[in-house]
Amino acid sequence: MTSNLSFILNKPNDVTFEERPIPKLKSPHDVLVAVNYTGICGSDVHYWLHGAIGHFVVKDPMVLGHESAGTVVEVGSEVKTLKKGDRIALEPGYPCRRCGDCLSGRYNLCHEMVFAATPPYDGTLTGFWVAPFDFCYKLPENVSLQEGALIEPLAVAVHITKQARIQPGNSVVVMGAGPVGLLCAAVAKAFGATKVVSVDIVQSKLDFAKSFAATHTYLSQRVSPEENAKQLIAAADLGAGADVVIDASGAEPSIQASLHVVRMGGTYVQGGMGKADINFPIMALCLKEVTARGSFRYGSGDYKLAIELVAAGKVDVKALVNGIVPFKNAEEAFKKVKEGEVIKILIAGPNEKVEGALDTHVDEAKFQAEAAKKDGGCC
Amino acid sequence: MTSNLSFILNKPNDVTFEERPIPKLKSPHDVLVAVNYTGICGSDVHYWLHGAIGHFVVKDPMVLGHESAGTVVEVGSEVKTLKKGDRIALEPGYPCRRCGDCLSGRYNLCHEMVFAATPPYDGTLTGFWVAPFDFCYKLPENVSLQEGALIEPLAVAVHITKQARIQPGNSVVVMGAGPVGLLCAAVAKAFGATKVVSVDIVQSKLDFAKSFAATHTYLSQRVSPEENAKQLIAAADLGAGADVVIDASGAEPSIQASLHVVRMGGTYVQGGMGKADINFPIMALCLKEVTARGSFRYGSGDYKLAIELVAAGKVDVKALVNGIVPFKNAEEAFKKVKEGEVIKILIAGPNEKVEGALDTHVDEAKFQAEAAKKDGGCC
Amino acid sequence: MTSNLSFILNKPNDVTFEERPIPKLKSPHDVLVAVNYTGICGSDVHYWLHGAIGHFVVKDPMVLGHESAGTVVEVGSEVKTLKKGDRIALEPGYPCRRCGDCLSGRYNLCHEMVFAATPPYDGTLTGFWVAPFDFCYKLPENVSLQEGALIEPLAVAVHITKQARIQPGNSVVVMGAGPVGLLCAAVAKAFGATKVVSVDIVQSKLDFAKSFAATHTYLSQRVSPEENAKQLIAAADLGAGADVVIDASGAEPSIQASLHVVRMGGTYVQGGMGKADINFPIMALCLKEVTARGSFRYGSGDYKLAIELVAAGKVDVKALVNGIVPFKNAEEAFKKVKEGEVIKILIAGPNEKVEGALDTHVDEAKFQAEAAKKDGGCC
Amino acid sequence: MTSNLSFILNKPNDVTFEERPIPKLKSPHDVLVAVNYTGICGSDVHYWLHGAIGHFVVKDPMVLGHESAGTVVEVGSEVKTLKKGDRIALEPGYPCRRCGDCLSGRYNLCHEMVFAATPPYDGTLTGFWVAPFDFCYKLPENVSLQEGALIEPLAVAVHITKQARIQPGNSVVVMGAGPVGLLCAAVAKAFGATKVVSVDIVQSKLDFAKSFAATHTYLSQRVSPEENAKQLIAAADLGAGADVVIDASGAEPSIQASLHVVRMGGTYVQGGMGKADINFPIMALCLKEVTARGSFRYGSGDYKLAIELVAAGKVDVKALVNGIVPFKNAEEAFKKVKEGEVIKILIAGPNEKVEGALDTHVDEAKFQAEAAKKDGGCC
Repeated sequence: MTSNLSFILNKPNDVTFEERPIPKLKSPHDVLVAVNYTGICGSDVHYWLHGAIGHFVVKDPMVLGHESAGTVVEVGSEVKTLKKGDRIALEPGYPCRRCGDCLSGRYNLCHEMVFAATPPYDGTLTGFWVAPFDFCYKLPENVSLQEGALIEPLAVAVHITKQARIQPGNSVVVMGAGPVGLLCAAVAKAFGATKVVSVDIVQSKLDFAKSFAATHTYLSQRVSPEENAKQLIAAADLGAGADVVIDASGAEPSIQASLHVVRMGGTYVQGGMGKADINFPIMALCLKEVTARGSFRYGSGDYKLAIELVAAGKVDVKALVNGIVPFKNAEEAFKKVKEGEVIKILIAGPNEKVEGALDTHVDEAKFQAEAAKKDGGCC
Repeated sequence: MTSNLSFILNKPNDVTFEERPIPKLKSPHDVLVAVNYTGICGSDVHYWLHGAIGHFVVKDPMVLGHESAGTVVEVGSEVKTLKKGDRIALEPGYPCRRCGDCLSGRYNLCHEMVFAATPPYDGTLTGFWVAPFDFCYKLPENVSLQEGALIEPLAVAVHITKQARIQPGNSVVVMGAGPVGLLCAAVAKAFGATKVVSVDIVQSKLDFAKSFAATHTYLSQRVSPEENAKQLIAAADLGAGADVVIDASGAEPSIQASLHVVRMGGTYVQGGMGKADINFPIMALCLKEVTARGSFRYGSGDYKLAIELVAAGKVDVKALVNGIVPFKNAEEAFKKVKEGEVIKILIAGPNEKVEGALDTHVDEAKFQAEAAKKDGGCC
Repeated sequence: MTSNLSFILNKPNDVTFEERPIPKLKSPHDVLVAVNYTGICGSDVHYWLHGAIGHFVVKDPMVLGHESAGTVVEVGSEVKTLKKGDRIALEPGYPCRRCGDCLSGRYNLCHEMVFAATPPYDGTLTGFWVAPFDFCYKLPENVSLQEGALIEPLAVAVHITKQARIQPGNSVVVMGAGPVGLLCAAVAKAFGATKVVSVDIVQSKLDFAKSFAATHTYLSQRVSPEENAKQLIAAADLGAGADVVIDASGAEPSIQASLHVVRMGGTYVQGGMGKADINFPIMALCLKEVTARGSFRYGSGDYKLAIELVAAGKVDVKALVNGIVPFKNAEEAFKKVKEGEVIKILIAGPNEKVEGALDTHVDEAKFQAEAAKKDGGCC
Repeated sequence: MTSNLSFILNKPNDVTFEERPIPKLKSPHDVLVAVNYTGICGSDVHYWLHGAIGHFVVKDPMVLGHESAGTVVEVGSEVKTLKKGDRIALEPGYPCRRCGDCLSGRYNLCHEMVFAATPPYDGTLTGFWVAPFDFCYKLPENVSLQEGALIEPLAVAVHITKQARIQPGNSVVVMGAGPVGLLCAAVAKAFGATKVVSVDIVQSKLDFAKSFAATHTYLSQRVSPEENAKQLIAAADLGAGADVVIDASGAEPSIQASLHVVRMGGTYVQGGMGKADINFPIMALCLKEVTARGSFRYGSGDYKLAIELVAAGKVDVKALVNGIVPFKNAEEAFKKVKEGEVIKILIAGPNEKVEGALDTHVDEAKFQAEAAKKDGGCC
């Protein structure tokens, strides 16, 4: 287990593999982690295709990947909670710990965040990774390393769903049935929601959502947001509207419908990324006294809770994985994600042996290209 | 004191006076109130000019007015907290008390609300008014009946500002320096904000805001919302942005700038009414994890707090009053408000003697017609 | 179905049955309900034995009972949400709807509350009952009238558990495994707690708790509160302490241990009633920055959520019922509760036919007399 | 300016002065601060007299003091926000930044906190002090270094008062008119409380409280807590009780009265330290649904807000200072505090020139010995 082979984006659509030196610990609080599995996020694919997201532009070659689980191979002198051999989920962003946001518990908003695979910082599709020990979360015995690689998107969903301040008994509508939307639905249920409605434009995704977490589904129609809202409310028997609406799509019509679906005094959370500016029903927000919140990555406690939800059997992340590919096939995996053929695919680390693709849990054929196209940004 | 003369809107731009029968108590919890003073709200003017606000349409003749103070002249058999002769501020909307919103303390969102001067319900520009005792708030000795008529717009501002969950020490930006914007600025200060920035497109209004409550002002420029936000942040030394932004203008460019002015993790409240749909920087809300809240009228505790703020000398509502006119001159008062010549004007009740207009506290000449044009809706 | 036979407490240990006139609707918002089943609460037993709880003293004969489900037999002219024949859970306390507490959504704290079987007001162990429609909650088809009679104690548990502001993933310790303690454990789990520890001094109750909702149990030892806390934390692997501790026992040693079990920054809720004053580890509260909250009865949304939890299969209230007795055997049922032989026993309404006791779900023999002695007050 | 003379506690009642080596920066994020002024806290006096507080025991000689302001004399290579010559208030406790409490914004609860003058860590009554830059707060031009030394107790009061979640318009009762109680009263007012009642057993302290911040005062009587509560409520016209009660005394009778003074649904905060266990009216907490919270030191944002309150003229900390003594007279200053002759006394740093004691703002003679005796612990 000595390869530090890395999967590197040079410029849009131009990736290479390179053996890089194994990194050293930078602080006595650091650990060295051998990466076992890494999932592919929409943002990885976006950098691969476009070389930039917003004002984050890839100027120099950058290692991709940030959804990883690994095994501790070395610990710094001040590390007490981890030891060699521990299997961990890897939180891939490191804040400054000293600004007002960090000290008040909102480290995900830190202006000096160093985040994997966000230019100019390298990502985790590599052999070895150095991280501060408190951003490495030991996996319980009943959580596999493959599930560990899915803790990152689950933490995204946990953070979004926390922003909704769900009360037990709430009705929750989730716009979008991509990976994050599916996970939000499952987390909402674990948070005590008694009605969870998944909404999408692709019926096959809704079928999966129903089997995965949703109590109801609604196939968006080519009608006005108000009309979609009305039909959705009727279809899911939401009475005066949903207590909570989470947009995990980033799509303009979904966001518009969200404001018409939420009840007076209810909550809407914007979790999915899409266009910077959209046409927005601002008077619905004002007159219904809606609370709207944004959600960005994950923060204090989110990884811990994500792992607990998997360990407790409340979120079956394995069901999202369509296959695992050897490290050398990383580009092929990116293509499959881009083409919308899969929900989640894992890339084994360069030191990991993979006999072949895992059994797929879903019928790939059902996931048409349009599915991927719809998902803007990270979700 | 026996006239029940009422000021009635028949259809757009068509008002008349009419002696109506003095109303009777409908429940043992009711009181009969002789109306002393009534302020004019933007919504009154809007009904007068257009006969409708959104889907609220004036179909039958309707008494105007809902910002009133009065004197108790009769109490029902179950009323224990008020007696004949008590001077009161009149909360003009009565909820059902039995729906989920009412029982959970959000009666302003009640679907069966009966609200004065909102079709089909008559308003308070009349001689006598019947109200449930718990929606009549006794004025302390040091609060005049004229100040009492301003408790309604102050309660609007209290509710908006409460929605912002202001923490002491916060910086607060208020978009719009009309009556409600001015009152929001004053309330924000009373809530412990150490920096309060009033923003408007009319310099004279900002000058008044500065004398009234604002610690800083900013004159909006004809530049992009991002650029206005940047200049505003620099002008008021807001560092990474304002903790709280309140839009009391309803104007699209103000709302857009609000999202660029608020800091990461900050709060934005939509208090002003305007267009139903606008172009909105949704990714700013998402990526900065902004909390946005709407605000609609006022609810539990708002009138009580508004009166306390006046009694404690924390909000000088008198400073907003440019004059008082006799009841028979009500239409003239509406014209002055429409033309933007005043901040607030009070109409004396039909049984009230008024020698002449009060001294004006501001130079009317400065309030150009454009001022009124800018204020969409209620603020 | 015409009997209005009522079960009446004259003075301590002196009960009689009496046919009373069927009550009339007092308002167009009222409904008349035929009572089908009524559970017995610790407070009922306390009145029966002592004639008083605190300063509530039974001076005149009073009908007992307040945990009831029934069937609507007449509706007032303003009632829109219920009709004759509807099966309902009966919320037995009616607030004034007009005080500050009522208007702000805390009606359970209303000073003018009229509460069943709290002197001087009669209770629900009677044939017919008049209630405002909004305090009658229609049961879904899959919730029986017998389960409906258990909604009251479940609403108590919902309210207590809401006071704890449980976050998903929390560890929750519940002191006391009487009916309310058991229900709190189940509700905590439904609210997303991943670890729920039931604590009692009777092993058989803990065995039932484990089968009902608890993930862990702890048998209190005759040691100091600190030592019990230490052993409990170790036994349930709570690390630096529990996120939330709910006392549903009212017992002094349990309350003391609660403050030593809760983690720094955690929450403790006092749900059980007992002695007015106790020796209390106040510096533990101060130095650990514990949040403590009291809980009293139930309020806005609690009945609704309780019914949803039963309908969704999240709380199996049936499992608590040891038997159902005919109305004429009401006194016998009280004796069984007093002697701690049962968890819950239901009394059928006077118009209800009961062939015999239901099968018991627990082994009565295990519930020793000491069990009842321990439960102070309502839990 | 080269002396690092330090004021050292060897064992109870045994203090010495010693020249120690000037400390070095331990990290590139550190700054070296020359200490200008240091206030004396009740806890300093307690260590001096008893050599221990609870399980914190002085085993080796320890420098006393932790309420300091100073001047930056050297900055580490990574420090961007401070420069040589900056005048700062010194937050004297440094958390680990890596545990769950730190990462979630509750660093004051960090188990690895290194806190000045808490054994085994040295305090700030010394010439030079090394601190991480983010725990040094630059003083605005209009805040003096002497005021800077009072930011620490003001931050304590800010934290306590924040725990009370004061809403504008609230009535707030503060038990105890020692330094922290006085500051809590002032902070409560700055947070929008319209009624602030100071309570003490010494009339002269109440007279000062009235001049400093309180709107009302109440002299505790030798009667039962219930009776004191009743009289206090009547005296301050609190109706159904106070919205918020803060105990800054730590005294058992005050805490008992607190629970009887607070209204139903109100909040009580334990800020003062005293006996570990007391007789406590637990049923008042339960039945009134009181929220109780502890408060320990200060955390995120507290120093910043404390400085803003002083800079904005909302809290006149100077009024609390009875005098300033040269460093060599440190022991004499401790004696004055112990004897209750002063509210606050400052010790100038060893490099600071002090001509003589400042004018005293209060009549020392009025502060009898009993005053000091009453204040348990830190307040």
